[in-house]
Amino acid sequence: MSVNLPEFPEMPSIKGVKLNAVSAGIKKNNQLDLMAIVLPSGSAVSGVFTKNAFKAAPVTICQEHLAHKPEVLLVNSGNANACTGEAGFQAAIDTCRTVADVCNLNEKQVLPFSTGVIGEPLPSDKITAAIPELIKHAEENNWSLAAQGIMTTDTAAKGATQTLQLDDETIVINGIAKGAGMINPDMATMLGFVVTNANIEQSLLDKLTKEASIQSFNRITIDGDTSTNDSCIVAATGESSIFIDSENHPSFLAFKEALIRVHQQLAQMIVRDGEGATKYVSVQVEQGKTPQECFEVAYQIAHSPLVKTALFASDPNWGRLVMAIGNAEIQGFDVSQVNVFINNVLIVENGCRAQSYTEEAGQSEMDLQEITLRVCLGRGECEEVLWTTDLSHEYVTINAEYRT
Amino acid sequence: MSVNLPEFPEMPSIKGVKLNAVSAGIKKNNQLDLMAIVLPSGSAVSGVFTKNAFKAAPVTICQEHLAHKPEVLLVNSGNANACTGEAGFQAAIDTCRTVADVCNLNEKQVLPFSTGVIGEPLPSDKITAAIPELIKHAEENNWSLAAQGIMTTDTAAKGATQTLQLDDETIVINGIAKGAGMINPDMATMLGFVVTNANIEQSLLDKLTKEASIQSFNRITIDGDTSTNDSCIVAATGESSIFIDSENHPSFLAFKEALIRVHQQLAQMIVRDGEGATKYVSVQVEQGKTPQECFEVAYQIAHSPLVKTALFASDPNWGRLVMAIGNAEIQGFDVSQVNVFINNVLIVENGCRAQSYTEEAGQSEMDLQEITLRVCLGRGECEEVLWTTDLSHEYVTINAEYRT
Repeated sequence: MSVNLPEFPEMPSIKGVKLNAVSAGIKKNNQLDLMAIVLPSGSAVSGVFTKNAFKAAPVTICQEHLAHKPEVLLVNSGNANACTGEAGFQAAIDTCRTVADVCNLNEKQVLPFSTGVIGEPLPSDKITAAIPELIKHAEENNWSLAAQGIMTTDTAAKGATQTLQLDDETIVINGIAKGAGMINPDMATMLGFVVTNANIEQSLLDKLTKEASIQSFNRITIDGDTSTNDSCIVAATGESSIFIDSENHPSFLAFKEALIRVHQQLAQMIVRDGEGATKYVSVQVEQGKTPQECFEVAYQIAHSPLVKTALFASDPNWGRLVMAIGNAEIQGFDVSQVNVFINNVLIVENGCRAQSYTEEAGQSEMDLQEITLRVCLGRGECEEVLWTTDLSHEYVTINAEYRT
Repeated sequence: MSVNLPEFPEMPSIKGVKLNAVSAGIKKNNQLDLMAIVLPSGSAVSGVFTKNAFKAAPVTICQEHLAHKPEVLLVNSGNANACTGEAGFQAAIDTCRTVADVCNLNEKQVLPFSTGVIGEPLPSDKITAAIPELIKHAEENNWSLAAQGIMTTDTAAKGATQTLQLDDETIVINGIAKGAGMINPDMATMLGFVVTNANIEQSLLDKLTKEASIQSFNRITIDGDTSTNDSCIVAATGESSIFIDSENHPSFLAFKEALIRVHQQLAQMIVRDGEGATKYVSVQVEQGKTPQECFEVAYQIAHSPLVKTALFASDPNWGRLVMAIGNAEIQGFDVSQVNVFINNVLIVENGCRAQSYTEEAGQSEMDLQEITLRVCLGRGECEEVLWTTDLSHEYVTINAEYRT
């Protein structure tokens, strides 16, 4: 089940960026489960990682290796290598070493990523055995195959691409991602990999990577749970002769916008493919005093099981929205200033049911697959948006019955 | 559906405390929907109320009237009188005034409570018409009837009683409550009413009331949602000749313990009767540095849809527990110190799957209807517990299909 999930796009190749995915035997039935992205030397690489205290071994290693000019991203699905202790750490290092040997690199130039079952030993022998062929057949045109190689319970491979013209150069930003529920039965991880041929100063790329995640992956919630393995990497090969070295550079804003767009498209695809999703819901909170209070209200709505089950039922149950908004801890919150809309239908006005509101009007909006819940707090000028899904029987089924 | 919900107990009467419930026509089919508790003059009365910013009109009025030596608690079910603006406020005041006329009191000596549909006008004419008979036939032996009169989607009336011997006197603490899910389709409210013949100094009772709620109603979560009407009232008639005027009084601790026990029993009944509940789950977090961090971890577990669906499936999915624990925002959280137990089975040891753990051992504990999830943080001496349920298809059905 998914809500208007777009097909995998035509992705232009990026010079020197080669990808491949193979079946290493981690998953059953010869499914693709090992993927590599090989970057040209000198690429700038940045990353953001899960804040979960139980960080998987590869996350810890990535965070250390990032400073060593990485040139290969190695990703396995089928096993999260999380809660695996020192053995899991060594297993991940072994895979890095094998890649380094094949590619004639230092092992610290390899970033490892894992997604799948928590707590099972990583079968690093299967991975190291598959690495030589994986790397040997890596090609520039393999974006779709790479996206397939990192899927776990995703119903489809996820990719997004943006092209922008800077002077007479074409800048490409390609991204792939996986995730369908912040965590699956015992599958973990949202992963995102974004590569561009742009030429971006490293510390600026670090900043952009953080900002793009804040504007995208940090604004989606399916069940409020985050995983032990969540990671997003942005790599800039520097092929472009236009060196964007500061926020004042004339091309900075255009690049930033395109980068955020790729991130947002990937993030929204994860929501559209959310476990059991039957609705795609934007929660938009306006007129807050601070961004924080806008997010606080938005998350109260997006995390409320009562709001989510009402969305599943297409029930314009505004009492639940009001309840969720009222749960936000906001100092001096005067609810008599609050207006709430379902799409363009005003349902709550000055904290009470709007005079103009009819159940029929609410119903016809709630019947749609794509819904915007808009809350005006009447306190200030800030606004924030996030994206979520409903809570369906299918969600319970997927998450309750997976291992039975 | 409910999990080992105890039958309504034999409740001893408390001298001078009279109760009644009638059908005023707010609900359909002559269901009981109006209840009153009449207290003897001079009773000490305390209350705790919802923190939801959308406070229902009766909550606001109660908070003001509490200071005026209330003698009647008037409760209607079937309508929450929430988000009803100034008209709702006036409607609630009208009902207080009618009670005051009948009982020869000031209107401020009446505390109004409402539970039911949000946003519909309170039919105060039906309530005022029913008040004279309601009050006239109030009797000391009506605890069970009173508990039935405040039900909304509860599957059974909820009551708890404790008796304690102080010197040669018998002190009785009776409590009734309603609630089954913090909020229903568009039903709101957890309500609790506890009355004792003890003689407690007012400010001490205020403190005890707060403490008892912290130890009970503030430790239960079904869906993480709180309502616009949640209230709990404690009244002490002062019949007893033993005046407990400070925490140093020799009877203070015994009384406090019994009061908390009544509160906890009521709170746990609400969880046992939780919407769609098939499991009764205690989440116990030990060895924290502060109570706050113990609660933080406990709520991450109790609110995680992935943990809750695993509980529903009786799936010993320890990866999800680890993930939920890791989501807690704790400074300097060293997960290699964490142990996790399902009942007495050690599943996670030093942050990894325990060597001794077998899926079979975990499975046999998860198959039980009553489960304790115990987390040892290895950081300090604090511990906290809370009580919750699983997330079942029935929960989604109740909350999605109620109005369809």
